[in-house]
Amino acid sequence: MEKRRRFPVMANRFLRRASASEAVRKLSARMILERGLIADGDRILIAVSGGKDSTVMAWTLAALRRSLKLNYSLAALHISSDFCSCCKKPALRLRLAAWDIPFTDIFVPITERLKPGEKMNCYWCSTQRRTELLKYAVENGFNKIALGHHLDDIIETFFMNMTAKGELSAMPVLLKYRKYPVSLIRPLGYVEERQIIACAAEQDILRAACTCPYGANSRRLEIRKRLAEFTGGDRAVKRRILKSLCGKTFDFLAENG
Amino acid sequence: MEKRRRFPVMANRFLRRASASEAVRKLSARMILERGLIADGDRILIAVSGGKDSTVMAWTLAALRRSLKLNYSLAALHISSDFCSCCKKPALRLRLAAWDIPFTDIFVPITERLKPGEKMNCYWCSTQRRTELLKYAVENGFNKIALGHHLDDIIETFFMNMTAKGELSAMPVLLKYRKYPVSLIRPLGYVEERQIIACAAEQDILRAACTCPYGANSRRLEIRKRLAEFTGGDRAVKRRILKSLCGKTFDFLAENG
Repeated sequence: MEKRRRFPVMANRFLRRASASEAVRKLSARMILERGLIADGDRILIAVSGGKDSTVMAWTLAALRRSLKLNYSLAALHISSDFCSCCKKPALRLRLAAWDIPFTDIFVPITERLKPGEKMNCYWCSTQRRTELLKYAVENGFNKIALGHHLDDIIETFFMNMTAKGELSAMPVLLKYRKYPVSLIRPLGYVEERQIIACAAEQDILRAACTCPYGANSRRLEIRKRLAEFTGGDRAVKRRILKSLCGKTFDFLAENG
Repeated sequence: MEKRRRFPVMANRFLRRASASEAVRKLSARMILERGLIADGDRILIAVSGGKDSTVMAWTLAALRRSLKLNYSLAALHISSDFCSCCKKPALRLRLAAWDIPFTDIFVPITERLKPGEKMNCYWCSTQRRTELLKYAVENGFNKIALGHHLDDIIETFFMNMTAKGELSAMPVLLKYRKYPVSLIRPLGYVEERQIIACAAEQDILRAACTCPYGANSRRLEIRKRLAEFTGGDRAVKRRILKSLCGKTFDFLAENG
């Protein structure tokens, strides 16, 4: 492992055998085992948007079914809306079928639910989707919902909440709901976005990936730029930031006693 | 006294009335009252290095004795060592006397205490000083120790611990020791370094300020540079970062349940 890591991604492919797909699979397995994201008998609902992240996650969870000594089932749910439905849905359905993951598509009138005078925004859309996801999972006997957020998403959210809201909060890699018999898991929490892009290219996923027409909001793009400067893109620094979020004691933050 | 403080030294004193000294006093008062740093009857030991930060803090705590409706006593302790003793100590003593703060100087052989083969470093020095401070405070009936760390120090430490150690920890503005009847307080926690420098200039403190011969270590200088880029020097962003450290719930960090 140590030896392989010495060769950068673009190095001679005859010398180097470790692929991005292998790295994504290994990092996801580590996340799942280290943080107890999946247990034997879990019924996992994968939230698939049609984008690269959730598709790579579906591929990873399907691949890990064979290698992890855990017995879990997978199904995928896509939420179409009145302003955005994945344009590559038939391809997505075929791909998931090839990975032995049943696919369901539901329609939610997200724009329609806006009250008069309210504008469409990312917060509103994600809240509506989350509610529908939870409802579907509970009604259909799933006990885990897998979301495709990766290391860069989690760190960006952490820095956005800290600098814009004055709150220490991020996207938990494991979140147990108190009200519902369901947990959220983020198996790609150790994986960088560039690794997902490389993996998607290797698995021929990128060609059929779709992105939200609203794109990333400007505040997120700004924090992404500043974070890239701050971390210098150093993978080890990013992983230490994630590690710090996983700490259990916060006695030495601002007040104690 | 009050009139004088309103006029900053460098600004046009006919046009501008709010001074850096006033800002430092107000922010410190806010920190003390909002976070309950000082209570009636407190016996506060001020750790004075001879540098600008702790001298400005001593000036602030002396000035606030008159305006806050809190009855507390002040004394200052300076720790001289075999590698660094404040070269401006007589001036410091006179200044503190003018502010009605009794001054004590003790000697600690910090370099001498190093085990053979060990090198002098900031961590070792600060641990030794902290131990002596605590010992002196407990033996002499002080229940609070005031340290001169400011907003930039606290944020830098937070980012250093996060990116280098993978830990969410900073310099608490209030730290109660479990083993000793003493608490640490950092009344300058809301004040930026540039405000301290301006206040020190106004109060004619800079001329007699002394700095550690070891200076800031290179890792701290590096993080300082990157942080300045990240926050863009935006005071509001820095305050929101501090606010985030003062939060009480961390349910949405990395794991929950």
